[in-house]
Formats: sequence, structure tokens, C-alpha cells
Amino acid sequence: MSTDVRAALIIIGNEVLSGRTQDANLQFLALGLNEVGVRLKEVRVIPDDEAEIIATVNALRARYTYVFTTGGIGPTHDDITSECVAKAFGVPLRQDPRAVELLKRVIKPENLNEARLRMANIPEGADLIDNPVSAAPGFHIGNVYVMAGVPRIMQAMFDGLKAGLKGGASMVSRSVTLHVGEGGIAAPLAAIQTRHPEVEIGSYPFTRDSGYGTVIVTRGTDAALVAAVTAEVAAMARALGARVEDDDHSTDHGHAPETP
Amino acid sequence: MSTDVRAALIIIGNEVLSGRTQDANLQFLALGLNEVGVRLKEVRVIPDDEAEIIATVNALRARYTYVFTTGGIGPTHDDITSECVAKAFGVPLRQDPRAVELLKRVIKPENLNEARLRMANIPEGADLIDNPVSAAPGFHIGNVYVMAGVPRIMQAMFDGLKAGLKGGASMVSRSVTLHVGEGGIAAPLAAIQTRHPEVEIGSYPFTRDSGYGTVIVTRGTDAALVAAVTAEVAAMARALGARVEDDDHSTDHGHAPETP
Repeated sequence: MSTDVRAALIIIGNEVLSGRTQDANLQFLALGLNEVGVRLKEVRVIPDDEAEIIATVNALRARYTYVFTTGGIGPTHDDITSECVAKAFGVPLRQDPRAVELLKRVIKPENLNEARLRMANIPEGADLIDNPVSAAPGFHIGNVYVMAGVPRIMQAMFDGLKAGLKGGASMVSRSVTLHVGEGGIAAPLAAIQTRHPEVEIGSYPFTRDSGYGTVIVTRGTDAALVAAVTAEVAAMARALGARVEDDDHSTDHGHAPETP
Repeated sequence: MSTDVRAALIIIGNEVLSGRTQDANLQFLALGLNEVGVRLKEVRVIPDDEAEIIATVNALRARYTYVFTTGGIGPTHDDITSECVAKAFGVPLRQDPRAVELLKRVIKPENLNEARLRMANIPEGADLIDNPVSAAPGFHIGNVYVMAGVPRIMQAMFDGLKAGLKGGASMVSRSVTLHVGEGGIAAPLAAIQTRHPEVEIGSYPFTRDSGYGTVIVTRGTDAALVAAVTAEVAAMARALGARVEDDDHSTDHGHAPETP
């Protein structure tokens, strides 16, 4: 997996940490990044707090090829992401004429007050991220992509910028459902993982109609190897007398299966 | 907010980072911690990787009163949380006779193989966390609480241990829905926040029937103050000609409202 391109996501928002809002952006971003060969390797959820945001942006941008943030770019007092990212990069935050133009297209002049104009404050040197939903843009500076928190807007922003990301080899995943408890196949499964360090084998237990089962997910960049390892897992389970269901042949995008 | 008791959650699992599984534990934990006066202040989602788990556990246990982990305590090769937590604390991982007894209650002797017995490996000095769903226990050592990733099991574990946490003052929250865009009330809202630094005022925009609206959530430990600030927000919006809907009077537990 030498072609790994790694990314992190920073979810900025007290509302997620308080339990008021269920985050919906992590999974969307993870699946979208998979499509372009980028692997999401870490997510942090942090409060709307200046010191936390600056420290987290700086820690993660040094460590990952791409860093995405969601939340905190609206017009109210609790929207402090843009100024924090500017501070993290040590550049001034200034009113961006391109962003002002975008806001003017949807906001009547008499409504374009100081608060709404704050949404045009962008760190110097940043490029804008298009917002086809409600105009107020995101931006990216260096390897940091700053997006809205509202899922509909975040998704539109990411769909627009995705093609510009430089990914590595796409991850392919395949899963197989074994009607046997995890503990019954753990040892031979570990042996298969040891023989194939180039793939990642995950084991996810479930119960259904009071029977135990395990979904085995194999992920890697070599589709043929992923298929071969999946077949090896299925054969191992069959040899132990377990019923085996072939699952999907999907790559890691499209809709995600329910947790088994 | 001098009585702040702060906690962090570490979600351990490749399946969440790949987008295959939508995490369901963050919100449950956040709401449950609110009930006992503990504030969730940070969440990290990290892969099933030894170095990452050890570093993250050590970084967060030094920083927060409580650290919770979910995921990685099953019988398969990708379940490495227990050994990583032992290494983080610098103590041996050893077979715990109490945990073996618990496993024996639900696993027949002929099925109690080496893999299943791994679930009885607990760091020295840890106390067990009861698992009323499937017997295999979690544990806590120092201020770190290690729980299963399967939501049904995690929830049962947390419900059992919750009463043992020492929280501070409970957070109370109240919300009010203003039928006006965020940008229309941002300045007076910021003034209210500045006058009342003891509460946290969050602003969450929504669109409904193509009209703009904003939900304002006020949180704090002083219920009377939270109510007074909410009334002040409502009066401010009414003075600007906006329609105002009174929302809930809930504390931060029970079910979470949908994202507006």
C-alpha cells in the first residue's frame, strides 16, 4: 500500500459533542474519498473553541495529505472556523471580493449586513470552494479544505472539489457473510490475514434470528487479491461447516450496508 | 462553569473510517454523559492500529477526567484494544479469572477456544465492566473505560457504569426556533452571548418550505439563567418582526431533535 494518500476530517461543533445533532458528514466524506483513492485515517470532533481549532488544524495538516473541516463558517458569533484557520496558517483573514460577489448574487443589498459579510472573510491566499446550495463559499488553503457543516451544503461542496484531489490507488472492498460466531473462525482468519498483509481483513459480528454470524470485509488496492482472499475466507468457513452467503462485489462507494 | 467534568471518546474501528459503518455510539454517549453532569469535549475516530491506539489513549487520558473507548475487544485478530490499553498504561495483559468465569456462563466448554478466551485478557489492575448482552466484559483502568463497539452492547455497558461516574453540575439546554435567517439576528445574538458568558449560545440554520429559520440552543448549568437567556433571544427576534416558536424545555438527554 505504498500509494496511500491519507486524509483527516475535523468536525467542528458543540452540537455534535452535546449529542444534540448526529453527525452525517463523516460517512459521506469517507465514501467520497474512497472513490478518488484517498483514505480517511482519522476524525476528530472538537468544540467551537479557538485554541482547540488552531491546534487541531496544525497537528493534522502536518500529518495528512488532506485535511477537511466541517462546521463553523456561517454568520453568527459561534462561527469561528475561518478566523481560526487563518491563525493556524499565520495569515490575515480579509474580505474576499470574489466571495462578496457570490453573496451579492443571493442576498439583497439591504440584507447584506455586517454579519452576512463575515461569510466573505477568507484567509489570504486561500481559494474558494463553490457552494451551489446557498452561495456562501468554503475555501481551501494549503492542504486544508474548509466546508460548511449543514450536510446538504457540505455534500455539494465536496462533490465539486472532489475531482481536484490527487488520490492513490482506489480501495476495493468485498464482504462475505459467515453464519458462525466470530470466535469460531478467529484462528484460521488470523492465519489468512498473516498470509496476506497487503489486505486489511475486518471481522464484524452480528446476531440474526438469535443465531450468531460474522461479516468479513476485505479491503485493498488489488481487486484480484481482494477477491482471492475473500474466496479463501469463504472456503475456510465452509470447511468448518458454516453456511456462507456471498455479499456484494462493490468498491467502497455507493451506499453503505447497514451495520451487521 | 467551574464544575466542568470533561470526557473524551475514542472510536476505534477501520469500518467507521472506511464509511462502511455509521457510528451510533457518539450521540448515545454524549446524551448519557450529560445526564450525569459530564461533558463530552472531544471525540477521535482512529484505525485498528497499535501505535495510534496507544498514543491516542495516552494523549487523552492525561487531558480529560474520563476517557471512553468503543470497539476492538472481540475475539478476532483485528481486536487489539485491550492489549494496546495495557501497553498505554505499561501494565501486563493477563487472563482474568473473573472474566473467564463470565465467558463460561454463556460459552460451552467445547467452544471456549483460544480465540474466545482472548476476550478474558484484561490489563492488570483493571476492573471489569459488566456486559449483560453477551457476557464478554469491558474494563476500566485508571480513568479509561473500554467498551464494545456493537451499539447494543456498548449501550448496556454504559448504562451499567454510568451511575459510578462523578459528574459536575448537569447541563441544561433550551432551544427556540426563530423564523428568520441567521444573518438577520447575528449581531444582536452576539451581543446577548457577550452579556452572558456563563452560557453557550449555539445558532443552527435551517430551511423549511423554502423559508429560512434558525434554531438557537442555549446551554449552561444554571437552569434559570438558561431560561432567561432563551427568553431574551425570543424577545430580540420578535422585536425584529420574526415569528418565534417555543421549543422544548428539556435537559440534554432523552431523544435528540432532528438537525434543523
